[in-house]
Amino acid sequence: MSNQNDDSLIHSDDPRHPANLICTLCEQFFHNNWCTGTGGGISMKHPTTNHYYLAPSGVQKEQMKPEDIFVMDSQTLEYLRVPPKYKPSACTPLFLACYKKRNAGGIIHTHSQNADVCSLIFKDQLKIANIEQIKAIPSGNIDPTTGKDISLSFFDTLSIPIIENVAHEEDLIDSLNDVLDKNPHTCAVIVRRHGIFVWGPTIDKAKIYNEAIDYLMELAIKMYQLGIPTTCGIGEEKNYLK
Amino acid sequence: MSNQNDDSLIHSDDPRHPANLICTLCEQFFHNNWCTGTGGGISMKHPTTNHYYLAPSGVQKEQMKPEDIFVMDSQTLEYLRVPPKYKPSACTPLFLACYKKRNAGGIIHTHSQNADVCSLIFKDQLKIANIEQIKAIPSGNIDPTTGKDISLSFFDTLSIPIIENVAHEEDLIDSLNDVLDKNPHTCAVIVRRHGIFVWGPTIDKAKIYNEAIDYLMELAIKMYQLGIPTTCGIGEEKNYLK
Amino acid sequence: MSNQNDDSLIHSDDPRHPANLICTLCEQFFHNNWCTGTGGGISMKHPTTNHYYLAPSGVQKEQMKPEDIFVMDSQTLEYLRVPPKYKPSACTPLFLACYKKRNAGGIIHTHSQNADVCSLIFKDQLKIANIEQIKAIPSGNIDPTTGKDISLSFFDTLSIPIIENVAHEEDLIDSLNDVLDKNPHTCAVIVRRHGIFVWGPTIDKAKIYNEAIDYLMELAIKMYQLGIPTTCGIGEEKNYLK
Amino acid sequence: MSNQNDDSLIHSDDPRHPANLICTLCEQFFHNNWCTGTGGGISMKHPTTNHYYLAPSGVQKEQMKPEDIFVMDSQTLEYLRVPPKYKPSACTPLFLACYKKRNAGGIIHTHSQNADVCSLIFKDQLKIANIEQIKAIPSGNIDPTTGKDISLSFFDTLSIPIIENVAHEEDLIDSLNDVLDKNPHTCAVIVRRHGIFVWGPTIDKAKIYNEAIDYLMELAIKMYQLGIPTTCGIGEEKNYLK
Repeated sequence: MSNQNDDSLIHSDDPRHPANLICTLCEQFFHNNWCTGTGGGISMKHPTTNHYYLAPSGVQKEQMKPEDIFVMDSQTLEYLRVPPKYKPSACTPLFLACYKKRNAGGIIHTHSQNADVCSLIFKDQLKIANIEQIKAIPSGNIDPTTGKDISLSFFDTLSIPIIENVAHEEDLIDSLNDVLDKNPHTCAVIVRRHGIFVWGPTIDKAKIYNEAIDYLMELAIKMYQLGIPTTCGIGEEKNYLK
Repeated sequence: MSNQNDDSLIHSDDPRHPANLICTLCEQFFHNNWCTGTGGGISMKHPTTNHYYLAPSGVQKEQMKPEDIFVMDSQTLEYLRVPPKYKPSACTPLFLACYKKRNAGGIIHTHSQNADVCSLIFKDQLKIANIEQIKAIPSGNIDPTTGKDISLSFFDTLSIPIIENVAHEEDLIDSLNDVLDKNPHTCAVIVRRHGIFVWGPTIDKAKIYNEAIDYLMELAIKMYQLGIPTTCGIGEEKNYLK
Repeated sequence: MSNQNDDSLIHSDDPRHPANLICTLCEQFFHNNWCTGTGGGISMKHPTTNHYYLAPSGVQKEQMKPEDIFVMDSQTLEYLRVPPKYKPSACTPLFLACYKKRNAGGIIHTHSQNADVCSLIFKDQLKIANIEQIKAIPSGNIDPTTGKDISLSFFDTLSIPIIENVAHEEDLIDSLNDVLDKNPHTCAVIVRRHGIFVWGPTIDKAKIYNEAIDYLMELAIKMYQLGIPTTCGIGEEKNYLK
Repeated sequence: MSNQNDDSLIHSDDPRHPANLICTLCEQFFHNNWCTGTGGGISMKHPTTNHYYLAPSGVQKEQMKPEDIFVMDSQTLEYLRVPPKYKPSACTPLFLACYKKRNAGGIIHTHSQNADVCSLIFKDQLKIANIEQIKAIPSGNIDPTTGKDISLSFFDTLSIPIIENVAHEEDLIDSLNDVLDKNPHTCAVIVRRHGIFVWGPTIDKAKIYNEAIDYLMELAIKMYQLGIPTTCGIGEEKNYLK
């Protein structure tokens, strides 16, 4: 059995160490209004040990410290370190699903108001097309020559599936698994009246995708309010203005 | 008679000491536009001495220093320390009511624009249902097994009573006492065209509740503007879109 | 003739010294979107020497340094110090009018978007009533017993005159003088499609008034968008909701 | 052939050195929501060597370091320094066009939401008139006596051309060259559903123009939402209010 108070796992002078980087990102996200009131969560895989680092439940995100973080063995899913004061986040099984099904390196969950509002406006999918910022999002296709991810192009349509919320966050697992299977290319899932989950091969990529998607959700809401369909053809916007 | 200049009550190297924490929170709330123009106020109980620490009247909240803070004996309600420059906040009797009737550990009063606008849209109660962030708010019920607060669930409706403002803030005391009696479970009261009072068993809980409620008020206003009733059933949103 | 490079006038370790405080406030106002693109301006009277300290023209407000500041003798209106790089602000004659006619201790001029939008919605006066934050604004009346300013009460109506903009900012002087004469109690003037001037007996009071008025302008715009007249009686809001 | 790892080009203690200033500005712009998700870009000419300093592709703008920056010879257009990790920005040819055709000293490219929304509302030109902040923008005319730029006056109309976006950012070069030729006085071009390019004789001027234009785009959207034409005559606003 592992020593659950192994603090060597969370102490490092390197600002890029998961225990430090998670705290930095949580503070940044708090000031974006993405995880106030202890909402939201984050997890990343240690790039060399592959351990999962997980923010706890109920912490004030702008005040999080490395000591507050859970560390989990990515093979046995056993906790290698448990913080003295906190319980595991109810997001933990959802994060594990993203690690497993998507080989994620980092996962961000926010209570972004833009996600909430998009989930009220859109039905099963948020769709938005013909916006430059879409190019920050991977298409899910791989370039056969370079082996690298191909991004969406300006003329593509970004689709993000929306699933229904449930009473207990951990019970989202079935619909999350289902939506991941049915949308093999998506790097994000909106949970209606709740928020959004975004992941990537690294925490840096997850952060970039999350910022780009939040920007696109903000713009989608503005387009809706102007009367412009978010997938309308270029040059057709003026036909829809209220 | 107590020495009203007993500065030992407000000097500490501990950032969690009430005299320091109140200043940190006021600066944070100022940058949220919750207490500009000297608006708003805050008070917390010292976790060991039980003294009440109170921000003064008329101070610029982002510039507050420990020296500006009043300290009151929680039994005699006598001031143990009076800052040289300031008068007590007109909120003081309201804070005392929350301490007494709710056994609060911390109370936050903001002039949040979201509270003002909600008080213009809603009549006697702000009601909002089926939003994940509601789960940050206590239901007022206690788990009989653990003795801990039970939070609202996702499917619950959060109700926050709205009372009418009066000319002199201290005269809110009667209607505040009345609304606290009639709404034994609420952790917040909106004052129409004025702002909001939020409290909790600790200042940390009060801060979390306040952030979650402000988030929900912001979302309630957006739902109103979209035409969606804030208590509408899940899946019915699309029927209401303007 | 004075030495126009007398830097002793602008060097001090005291953060409250006008040359330092003006820089601090300009940086804060920049981040409020009140003086981006070199817009806006500020001036304060030295509390002991009575010299006028004036931010220059064309400076990036978040980068201002004490060395950039003009100092003027308040009796002779002769410059005691001229910064090497900058020209005097075109606001200077307007600030001098506020010093002379209102005995101001500090004057703030912002390009607040809320002022611009209010100037498009309202005709000759911005009027707003029955909001708690109004109590931060002086009524212009003096308490005969204490000799102190009496603030507006919750049930009062705040009125801020709006004047027309002109091609050259210094040419606002005639209409500013006129509006100051006709509105002896106002502590602020909105300039249509331009911004706002706010003053007070000290720079601290000017800052507090400016924050409170900006808050009220923001709320006035929201009330306008909801269909609620900004001076409507308490309890009548619901009759107007669109 | 030059040494592409010549780090002496990017190391300086001077915060105004291009390699440092670009990083400072990128961080500031990130917090304005102008270049999240690695969007946007910036370039400036070294004031003495005339080398072009260019932010790379795909960098998180708030985390950029001098080591991440490309340096190019302004005569040969050969890279003098190439950062180890990054590729050149797809904006590079567009920046070079602004350097060449406008003798720019600095160029800023943002993904400002205000630019996106203006590009949805306006057809070929964003036009806005009779706003004080317009005076921050150069008219393109030169004072024959002083040889200095003449700014737009309050009564002038600011026009910013809008061009269509393309799949690959570098392919914007033809339409950018064309629009620069046809609009010899403009200091900015909006790219529909993409963002904005703004330049000036120095990076400071480019920053000031960009801030002023973003302010004016924000106000133009608000005027549109109120029903007021952005070029309507002074005093006619009230005829249009919805």
